[in-house]
Amino acid sequence: MIDDLPKGFKAGAAAASFKKAGRDDLGLIVSDRPCVLAGMFTQNLFKAAPVLVCQEILGTCGTARAVLANSGQANACTGEEGLDNCRATQKMVAEAAGLTPREILPVSTGVVGAHLKMDLWRDAVPALVQSLGSRDAEGFTRAFMTTDAFPKFAMREVTLSGGTARLTVMAKGAGMICPNMATMLCVALTDADVERAPWQAMFGRAVDKTFNRVSVDGDTSTNDTILGLANGASGVAARSEADLALLEEALTAILGTVSHMLVMDGEGASKVIHITVTGARDDKDAELVARSVGHSQLVKTAIYGGDANWGRIVTAVGYSGAQFDPSKVGLRLCGVERFRLGRPVNDDQEEKLAELLKAKDVDVEIDLGGGPGGYTFQASDLGHEYVTLNSDYRS
Amino acid sequence: MIDDLPKGFKAGAAAASFKKAGRDDLGLIVSDRPCVLAGMFTQNLFKAAPVLVCQEILGTCGTARAVLANSGQANACTGEEGLDNCRATQKMVAEAAGLTPREILPVSTGVVGAHLKMDLWRDAVPALVQSLGSRDAEGFTRAFMTTDAFPKFAMREVTLSGGTARLTVMAKGAGMICPNMATMLCVALTDADVERAPWQAMFGRAVDKTFNRVSVDGDTSTNDTILGLANGASGVAARSEADLALLEEALTAILGTVSHMLVMDGEGASKVIHITVTGARDDKDAELVARSVGHSQLVKTAIYGGDANWGRIVTAVGYSGAQFDPSKVGLRLCGVERFRLGRPVNDDQEEKLAELLKAKDVDVEIDLGGGPGGYTFQASDLGHEYVTLNSDYRS
Repeated sequence: MIDDLPKGFKAGAAAASFKKAGRDDLGLIVSDRPCVLAGMFTQNLFKAAPVLVCQEILGTCGTARAVLANSGQANACTGEEGLDNCRATQKMVAEAAGLTPREILPVSTGVVGAHLKMDLWRDAVPALVQSLGSRDAEGFTRAFMTTDAFPKFAMREVTLSGGTARLTVMAKGAGMICPNMATMLCVALTDADVERAPWQAMFGRAVDKTFNRVSVDGDTSTNDTILGLANGASGVAARSEADLALLEEALTAILGTVSHMLVMDGEGASKVIHITVTGARDDKDAELVARSVGHSQLVKTAIYGGDANWGRIVTAVGYSGAQFDPSKVGLRLCGVERFRLGRPVNDDQEEKLAELLKAKDVDVEIDLGGGPGGYTFQASDLGHEYVTLNSDYRS
Repeated sequence: MIDDLPKGFKAGAAAASFKKAGRDDLGLIVSDRPCVLAGMFTQNLFKAAPVLVCQEILGTCGTARAVLANSGQANACTGEEGLDNCRATQKMVAEAAGLTPREILPVSTGVVGAHLKMDLWRDAVPALVQSLGSRDAEGFTRAFMTTDAFPKFAMREVTLSGGTARLTVMAKGAGMICPNMATMLCVALTDADVERAPWQAMFGRAVDKTFNRVSVDGDTSTNDTILGLANGASGVAARSEADLALLEEALTAILGTVSHMLVMDGEGASKVIHITVTGARDDKDAELVARSVGHSQLVKTAIYGGDANWGRIVTAVGYSGAQFDPSKVGLRLCGVERFRLGRPVNDDQEEKLAELLKAKDVDVEIDLGGGPGGYTFQASDLGHEYVTLNSDYRS
């Protein structure tokens, strides 16, 4: 086990057989002192029970000490019974770990509409609490994986004026991924000493530049949650504007690393499409164009097939809802210009493009030729594996 | 050949080898007298050259005598050269058929960004014009098929106070189908005698209830065109409110028949998902919900796999952008209630549902429990065949 958590944090996990036996599906992180919190949650109107409970804690307390994660059942669309179950799991863990229930932030992932299996929870909680300190970031991350092909986590150090602090980010997500405020589940820990207001503010900006700009399938989940816990255990303070800027830069970078992993491991995805839009009337129009291209089934299947079918990209630009002059639009695919001032660029580079399209990361650059607005967005391609996984997910 | 065109219309077709040799890929319909026109076109900002030309004719002339259709090249995103080519094809056919260029409505489908192959056009036009009268509705429809698995056309008679008139509708479309105003290509002919204003008005309403409520892949094409030509050759007039209502009813019914075929033959589609939303704040919110469910990749793959994963449907309702109270929402899948007042209905009907989900048509009924708004929408499922077709469409 590598000691890759920030100071003062311990992780544990247990196998509760929520869906399959023999693998960790319950995870716990505990800080030895209260943490300053930041959090962003799904915009889906059906917010899962753990989302509602986390929002309540962030809205009233502002600090917490633990994150409790399970896979198997998402506890979404489960009504009052789901909320009661969620609170009962907080209580169980609080009693076993010597915390209060409101110090524990719950996050759940799995089948939507399924209730938590409370008997299995009761059986597994003692082992979970005992395991604290036995898992690293990967160990915790594995406990809330579902169809993820690999665990997604990263560690990074940031040197501020008073010393070095650490950031660790752990995320899950492979399907139902089109984060709107935050992705499926993500926990960001730091031992930097930072106050609540600047922490939440930089967290919001960093998430907006990273997790809110990726999509696997355009489906915004009921459980999207990203939590930021800062416990100050390093003794390294981020108070000055310069230090806050350094911390924000490091936070944005590490969230970018992990959100890219999310797209790379989109269910059945083989490639990441990096979409850059410039020359839009404003950033909002640029975003419309980027999301339209990133969500187009025809673009995603063409990229999957290594087909330089740029006409599909231009089509998705055209129906995005953004306002622009079609006769000024240009497009580069893998750096090769294919469309300029609203018409095809005729030099035939199909062979070169076919070679370039074999890469894992594919660049699509769109210039609307009309203004200062810009946006970047990452999307998965769409292949057979996506269909296979999602036409038979529950079995 | 069945004589299934309305009186006064003749159809022809020719094999020009635009993409493959040995099949009709050029079609022509000519009326023996001027037709009153109605038309609706794509909302995509990149409007194909033939769309621009048709819009010009509808905006200035109001009548025409012919429809000229080709597959192979969509003549979209082709700039000034594309417009010049489109006008040259009108001219060629006009000369050979004794018409004026502005009496000919051009429609094109095929690869976006590819130019018309003018040499092949010049070779094929004489045979095309000669063939007039040798094709029926199916024969014309086959000439503008691309990845369509079957030709989509229907014939219907309508009895008005003065006698019986005929309606024939011919459409193509299998991919890049999420019509916004009209679908890929559709031509509706009638020999009823109707004036321009009521014809365009009823046409708009009928398209809004049919073609504008279907989706295969959410991609709104650059070429969407639906044309309505009424030549009055039956001598049966639609003038009174009662007759106009009868004609509109028949038009809506036949367009509904053909738009359903479109979804049924969505690229790689095996099922049609019929989505009905009720209880919304207004029709607009109901539409948001219906489109969100119909475009959800996770819903489409679950239905493809015969998986009664209603949680994915509820999730798509939640992120639709519509406003409603989640605790009032209900859902029926294939007529079986699975969700009521925001929580799961617990009686286990999985086996019954697995059986019901084997049907070609799958009903999804969503009640938001909050108002008079409603909407219906038809969407294809999403299967392996879609990915296969679209990752290798151009080759």
